[in-house]
Amino acid sequence: MNILICGLGLIGGSLAKALKKNTSYKVLGWNRTKSVAEKALDEGAVDEIGELEDLIPKADVTVINFYPKSIVPFILEHKDLFKKDSIVTDSCGIKTEICREMEKYDLDFYFIGAHPMAGREVGGYDNSLDNLFDNASFICTPTESTPRNKTDALVGIAQNMGFARTVVTTPEHHDEMIAFTSQIAHVLACSYVLSPLAPMHEGYSAGSYRDVSRVARINADMWTELFIANKEPLVREIDDLVSNLMQFKYNIVNEDEEALRALMEKGNRIKEEIG
Amino acid sequence: MNILICGLGLIGGSLAKALKKNTSYKVLGWNRTKSVAEKALDEGAVDEIGELEDLIPKADVTVINFYPKSIVPFILEHKDLFKKDSIVTDSCGIKTEICREMEKYDLDFYFIGAHPMAGREVGGYDNSLDNLFDNASFICTPTESTPRNKTDALVGIAQNMGFARTVVTTPEHHDEMIAFTSQIAHVLACSYVLSPLAPMHEGYSAGSYRDVSRVARINADMWTELFIANKEPLVREIDDLVSNLMQFKYNIVNEDEEALRALMEKGNRIKEEIG
Repeated sequence: MNILICGLGLIGGSLAKALKKNTSYKVLGWNRTKSVAEKALDEGAVDEIGELEDLIPKADVTVINFYPKSIVPFILEHKDLFKKDSIVTDSCGIKTEICREMEKYDLDFYFIGAHPMAGREVGGYDNSLDNLFDNASFICTPTESTPRNKTDALVGIAQNMGFARTVVTTPEHHDEMIAFTSQIAHVLACSYVLSPLAPMHEGYSAGSYRDVSRVARINADMWTELFIANKEPLVREIDDLVSNLMQFKYNIVNEDEEALRALMEKGNRIKEEIG
Repeated sequence: MNILICGLGLIGGSLAKALKKNTSYKVLGWNRTKSVAEKALDEGAVDEIGELEDLIPKADVTVINFYPKSIVPFILEHKDLFKKDSIVTDSCGIKTEICREMEKYDLDFYFIGAHPMAGREVGGYDNSLDNLFDNASFICTPTESTPRNKTDALVGIAQNMGFARTVVTTPEHHDEMIAFTSQIAHVLACSYVLSPLAPMHEGYSAGSYRDVSRVARINADMWTELFIANKEPLVREIDDLVSNLMQFKYNIVNEDEEALRALMEKGNRIKEEIG
């Protein structure tokens, strides 16, 4: 089986390296900046590089690792090159917009959206790791029209690659959950370091500062696309969070010890239960 | 030199263990629940235990590790027992209320507020560690009336104990900074896990969820006291954070890519600069 990785940045590079390390699939690699693909070939992260016209027709599975807005146009531009019945997938952080758009086209290959749930504060091929996904979840989001055996095949590849767990869900549920588990954390981290006190944190900070501020090192271009593409679920999460913060504020302003304690006890109980 | 540790929970226990490990001071220990003090003695975390009436008069330095509201009453209750010219200090997370209250009394020992900047999600003596403070900052907050040599002595002890850095500042600056670096992170973590989506996070979460939610495991009684005692700086931080979150929200709702990108670029730049 041939797996083509298009886009050899942090995620694409790590997928290629994990495939080479953990499976015997043949890994084809393509990257817009050719020197990156050449480096990946030299390092053994991929088995073959070349032009899209040569690589795409050979691929049983194509994984597209681009920013959200570029994914559908790329697939449509090359739609006549994909092997019949092959699987085309992606790795970006929102799924509804892409999967529901791809559903509209009658194609002789199968698009299944996917999201390997791992990242780093640093991007690019040079920061990619063969173990980036070792403790990570692989989420894929088939639609009602995706054949079951195609979904199973993609899940099987993810398991062989070394993902700790795989999740199959709808694009909509993925986007709702990711608004909570990932997007709002990035919104928060940026909002947090924008405090006028942030530049003076040294000597006054320990683990809490480090943890909350970590993902403020953000790729602004990519996350702008992700946030706007997931507008409704994300705004709902921001509203919920702000409303909870305001509850804390009112209880503190009113020195309402009982209500404040109850709020924290509830948070503590939830965290203890859900991990 | 004799150092008395009153309250052998997570912080007091860790201070005692660090003193025993890294210094040759004699460590006296007292705990309300006597069996904890006995355990600390058995394990060699302290050299001597006993009644306050016997221990306090021997101490050159007394470190009080109680909840914020209990600290001043405890000191006043035992004020006639402290050795003349000795240092009395504490370890709680707010300083203005305590230091400015203690200033009002004419005593023949010296109170200097302090805050060893480390913690864990689990409390109590059994979770205390001799290396809890190895990468931590020791902040102390003398007032205008504290003799310089007393502050220097306390800082010297902290350095000998193995703190990575020591900071001397005013109680007010401490409280303002801690509202930002620590308190708001705890408010946030609780507010975050109160989202209706939190119980479904498994399979959809990676490092961001883990980091932001970590300190939701909170001691509700202690943090209620800390938050209310630091009302003004903390409410200011909540207001700032909510205002930044609302900026994100408006830009997302309006699909204003340029403004959203600019906000994230600013956050990213700040985080890169300040660490």
